[in-house]
Amino acid sequence: MNKESVINAYLPTTVTPVADSSDTQFAPSNIALCKYWGKRDVELNLPVNSSLSVSLAHLGSRTKVSVSDSDQVWLNGAQVAAGDKFARKVIAFIDLFRRGTDHCVRVETENNIPTAAGLASSASGFAALMLAIDQFYGLNLEPSVLSAFARMGSGSASRSLYEGFVEWQMGIREDGMDSFALPLDVRWPQLRIGLLKVDTGEKAVDSRAGMNRTVDTAHLYQSWPLQAAADLERLHQAIADQSFTCLGETAEQNALSMHATMIASWPPLLYWQPDSVAAMQTVWQARAEGLELYFTMDAGPNLKLLFTADAETAVNQRFPGLEVIRPFG
Amino acid sequence: MNKESVINAYLPTTVTPVADSSDTQFAPSNIALCKYWGKRDVELNLPVNSSLSVSLAHLGSRTKVSVSDSDQVWLNGAQVAAGDKFARKVIAFIDLFRRGTDHCVRVETENNIPTAAGLASSASGFAALMLAIDQFYGLNLEPSVLSAFARMGSGSASRSLYEGFVEWQMGIREDGMDSFALPLDVRWPQLRIGLLKVDTGEKAVDSRAGMNRTVDTAHLYQSWPLQAAADLERLHQAIADQSFTCLGETAEQNALSMHATMIASWPPLLYWQPDSVAAMQTVWQARAEGLELYFTMDAGPNLKLLFTADAETAVNQRFPGLEVIRPFG
Repeated sequence: MNKESVINAYLPTTVTPVADSSDTQFAPSNIALCKYWGKRDVELNLPVNSSLSVSLAHLGSRTKVSVSDSDQVWLNGAQVAAGDKFARKVIAFIDLFRRGTDHCVRVETENNIPTAAGLASSASGFAALMLAIDQFYGLNLEPSVLSAFARMGSGSASRSLYEGFVEWQMGIREDGMDSFALPLDVRWPQLRIGLLKVDTGEKAVDSRAGMNRTVDTAHLYQSWPLQAAADLERLHQAIADQSFTCLGETAEQNALSMHATMIASWPPLLYWQPDSVAAMQTVWQARAEGLELYFTMDAGPNLKLLFTADAETAVNQRFPGLEVIRPFG
Repeated sequence: MNKESVINAYLPTTVTPVADSSDTQFAPSNIALCKYWGKRDVELNLPVNSSLSVSLAHLGSRTKVSVSDSDQVWLNGAQVAAGDKFARKVIAFIDLFRRGTDHCVRVETENNIPTAAGLASSASGFAALMLAIDQFYGLNLEPSVLSAFARMGSGSASRSLYEGFVEWQMGIREDGMDSFALPLDVRWPQLRIGLLKVDTGEKAVDSRAGMNRTVDTAHLYQSWPLQAAADLERLHQAIADQSFTCLGETAEQNALSMHATMIASWPPLLYWQPDSVAAMQTVWQARAEGLELYFTMDAGPNLKLLFTADAETAVNQRFPGLEVIRPFG
């Protein structure tokens, strides 16, 4: 099944801009505590497992769509060349909705994610773009539909529609319309996330390619879906109990297990740098000394530290200059 | 089932030294290309999977057992304190065979493994000790029995009874007497192994404990036995075809998959140092430039490089001072 046929079922026969431009729409970046790793459908970004994330409050993307003489993509105030991969992905996503009508658009995106943090912006970017498209064409789509459509731009964008804890339910339908995210009705004001930069250079293998290589070549990947399901259950319990130890342990083991499946791929997929290992060792040493500090990592060399407000001073001593996020404000 | 009851079935009712001392017995160190990782019986060191190694020619252990006034263990010319873990393991192994008779023994072992190489000496050590015990008591045990008994001292010692390529067949019997090693009747004179030291300090978690933690806590370990079985088949084929690419790829993926199961354990078990990652990156970069170079790793931070004679100069340029072994002389 392709994206167009899925989307067509939810759209009016023709779309036209309801105004010259949408309002600027914001979507937060998110960090998964139980990772999305592996697709059961590559075209629709349907996942092998459900995942759970926490959104990064004010850090994310602001996007506005307007009528224009020519298709233009602007990122952080600068126009992106039309042939650029980023511009092509954005316009291809717009094309899913304007479907042959003859207007052109200008898409302006601002990411306020610190570039030093090494965070992916595709999740917040596609979520904000989806919100802007919905308003621009006056579609008034349901939140679950917005989430499912954002997912087709980038899997984890499905989770960036919401603040706080968010679960992306994998779903079972062939068209993927039951594969969308929902917010959890629980807050955890003491939770802190530290963005630890190791390397912010371009990755040699992007997440999409890395995920596919893992599914295709890593024997150990066979055990991943069941582990992710078990981790998701533990995280729900940890959040319900506000048990930070359980949350930290589960998130760290989940992230390391995801990296383990990459390491077991062929050719080997190691996103870690030597400094990533040094940072992990610092976390483990801190924990051995009694500090409740955990980490998670995505398909890259950087660590995202997990701790609570009472540990913030001690964590800052070990990681001077750490960018600390309060997901619940 | 315990070690004593297994051994009793193969020993005469009483044992006595047939001479004042055995000849010095040699057993080579070995490097597994398909790893032994996980036990189905902790007491007898019965493995979850069959494994395949290559012995390191002249590098290994020389051991002699003699009658003495008191139990003594000597290592590389120096007496080891009786309470030392190493001495206790050696004497406990001797006890399995002398079984209550009233003589004492002096066990002298020399390891010629370069200390900088970070190689375990328990495999060659227990194999040489088993050979010395066999001669000292005039047991004349079959090679398969010697291998099975050495396995009870240290799993990988079962493979150190032989030169060249060696397969340790996991077996299925409860007493483990079909779990022994056999040499492969194939030589590969061009094969080279480079011992790359990253760190030779004491490991925080020894292999035995690491293996047990992995089996107990890593979800991904469930996929390991099938992977090891597939890798073993590929290695047999690679050796039969003398296909170095297949041998190198299989050995490297097998080692990385073993480390992946450790990384997915809880608490996380990462034997790598930052310099291990740097060395892996150097290997991958060399391969990207066309050099047929692979690596394997055991439960530690050091790399064992795999290449063939024609690549030796190029490998030495990338890793100056590398200790290079010719397993087939």
